[in-house]
Amino acid sequence: MKALRFENNQLKLAEIPKPIKESEAVVRVLKSGICNTDVEIVKGYANFQGTIGHEFVGMVEEAKDAPNLIGKRVVGEINAGCGKCELCLQNDARHCPQRTVLGIVGRDGAHAEFLTLPMRNLFEVPENISDVQAVFVEPLAAAFGITEQVKIVPETRLAIIGDGKLGNLCAQSLALESRNVFLIGKHEEKLNLVGNRNIETVLLKNAKKLNKSFELVVEASGSESGFNLALDLLKPRGKLVLKSTFHGEAKWQAWRVVVDEITIVGSRCGRFQPALDLLKNNLVAVESLISEKLSLTDGVKAMKIAEQKGVMKVILSITN
Amino acid sequence: MKALRFENNQLKLAEIPKPIKESEAVVRVLKSGICNTDVEIVKGYANFQGTIGHEFVGMVEEAKDAPNLIGKRVVGEINAGCGKCELCLQNDARHCPQRTVLGIVGRDGAHAEFLTLPMRNLFEVPENISDVQAVFVEPLAAAFGITEQVKIVPETRLAIIGDGKLGNLCAQSLALESRNVFLIGKHEEKLNLVGNRNIETVLLKNAKKLNKSFELVVEASGSESGFNLALDLLKPRGKLVLKSTFHGEAKWQAWRVVVDEITIVGSRCGRFQPALDLLKNNLVAVESLISEKLSLTDGVKAMKIAEQKGVMKVILSITN
Repeated sequence: MKALRFENNQLKLAEIPKPIKESEAVVRVLKSGICNTDVEIVKGYANFQGTIGHEFVGMVEEAKDAPNLIGKRVVGEINAGCGKCELCLQNDARHCPQRTVLGIVGRDGAHAEFLTLPMRNLFEVPENISDVQAVFVEPLAAAFGITEQVKIVPETRLAIIGDGKLGNLCAQSLALESRNVFLIGKHEEKLNLVGNRNIETVLLKNAKKLNKSFELVVEASGSESGFNLALDLLKPRGKLVLKSTFHGEAKWQAWRVVVDEITIVGSRCGRFQPALDLLKNNLVAVESLISEKLSLTDGVKAMKIAEQKGVMKVILSITN
Repeated sequence: MKALRFENNQLKLAEIPKPIKESEAVVRVLKSGICNTDVEIVKGYANFQGTIGHEFVGMVEEAKDAPNLIGKRVVGEINAGCGKCELCLQNDARHCPQRTVLGIVGRDGAHAEFLTLPMRNLFEVPENISDVQAVFVEPLAAAFGITEQVKIVPETRLAIIGDGKLGNLCAQSLALESRNVFLIGKHEEKLNLVGNRNIETVLLKNAKKLNKSFELVVEASGSESGFNLALDLLKPRGKLVLKSTFHGEAKWQAWRVVVDEITIVGSRCGRFQPALDLLKNNLVAVESLISEKLSLTDGVKAMKIAEQKGVMKVILSITN
C-alpha cells in the first residue's frame, strides 16, 4: 500500500505492506488531514520515524473482537494505551506511560491506505457528518478538550491567540460555553472564517487595548510572541491554556507568571464523543477551514503546501 | 534616619528623613531579613529605586486610626492596596492593580530605622515568637501560601527543588499537610537543616531515580535547570508551583508542558496569620536558617554576604 513516511530525515511516498495486527482493527483510510504536528515532525519534533498523520476517517475492514464495527465509517482516538494500567482501566489512554500515538509515537499513522488501531479507539461517524467534516474530529476534540481542564461559564471572558485552524476550532467550540470569546490573529481573512458565531475578532495590532482584561487565554499560535502576548492579556490569577506543541525552546519571563500568579495549563488531546456531537448537531463549521484537497499520491507536495503561511487545513483523499 | 537604599544603580546606606504618613502606621523596625528578591532588585529586578527590604519585625510608634496598635510588636503584609477595588474590599490587596509593595514596588522598605504601612497590614506578634523568628513570617507565609493555591492531602507525593531558605520553608510547612515530601538540593549540609520533620532529603545528583513520580513539584531554586528538573520529576497531569522570582528570561521546552498536560501555578505572597500560627505553635523551625546577623550600618556588607552561595538568611539588627 502507499504511505506518506518520514524516515532518515526524509519525507517520501513509499510502498509498504498493508498492516495486519490481530488484536487491532484494520481501517481503510478514506481521507486524512494534515496537522501542524505533522509539519513539526518533519522538522524533527517527537523524533518520529514512520507513516505520519493522525487525523482521518476510514472504513473498518477487519475487527476480530468487534465484528459489529466491520464496514462502519469511523474516526479514531490517536492514543493507544497498554489496556492494563490505572489510566487505561479508567478508559483514558491519553497519558498511559506505555502508549503509542498514531503517526506521532511508535505507531504508523493515517496518511496511508490502511492503518490499525485498537478497536476501543474507534468511534462510528453519524451519517450526517461528511467525510471531510469527520477528519476534523481529532483537532476539534483537542480544542473542546479545554473544557475538561478549565471551568468556562457564560461570563468567562476569554481570548484565543492564533487565527489558524486550532485557534479557529477553539474559538468556535468555546463560544458554545462562554458569551465573551475573543479571537486574536494577524490575518483579517482568517479571523473572518469564524463567521457569525458570537466571537469578537481582533487584529493582533489592536490587541494591546485588551491588556489585563481576560480570566482565560488560550495560546494556539505556537509562537513565543503568542505566549508573551497571553501574559499581557491575562488578569492577575488568570489561566493560560497552552495548546500548541511547537518544537524547540522558547524564552519566557517566568517571574511574570510568579508575580501575577498565573496558572498555565498544558492541553493536548480531547475526547472524541463530544466533538462528534458538536459536528452532528451542526454547532461548529469546519469546511470553511479547508484550503486544499489533494490525493495521497501528492502527499509530499501537500505537506509543502501545508507548511506555507496562510494555508489552513490540507485534506488528503486516500481511497473511496 | 538610616536606610539601606538602591538608587541610580547603587546600593548605599543613606541618611533620610523619618517617614510620616498620617493615613498609615509608623513602625520602628527592630530586625529585618534579607531576601533573594532584595539581591535581585540590586541586579535590576522590578526596576525599584528606594529603601529595600520587606521582611521585618517592629514596634508601632504611631497609628492614628488604630491606637490599640501603638507600642505593639508587629509584622506586616507587604502589599498595600488602594482599599477600594474589588480585591481590596475582599481584604486581599495582593493583586490590587494600584498596589505598592514594601521595598519592591513604589514604597520604601524595611532595611531602615522606620517604615510606614497601612494599619490593616499589621499583625501583632505573639509573645512566644522571638524577634528573629518573626522576621521569617513573610517568607513562611509565601511558602505556606502554596496551600491556598493547590490541594495537598496526606497522600500527595510532592517534591521541593532548592535547598535554600525558601525551599526549606516550603518543605517544613508542606510536610504538615503531606506525609510524602521530598526536598531536593545540591548541598548535603543545607538539606540537613530541615532536621527530623518527616521530609526525605535527596541530593540533586540522585534525583533522576525519582523521575515521573510526583503529583506536585515546587520550584524554589530560581534556576532554569530547576524548572527543567521539575518537568522531569512530574507525573503526567502533575502540577508545578513556581515560587522564585528570578530576573531575566529563561528557556523552556513548552511542548513538554503540553504533551504531559502539566499545570504550572505561579505563587507569590501568602497570608500572614497562618504563618504566625505555625511559629506560635512551634511547628516550623527557622532559627537554624540564620547564617549571619549584622547591624543595619553594615547593610551594604550584609547584602554582599547574602549574595554568596551557601549563605542562608542574613538578619539585620536595626534598633532595640
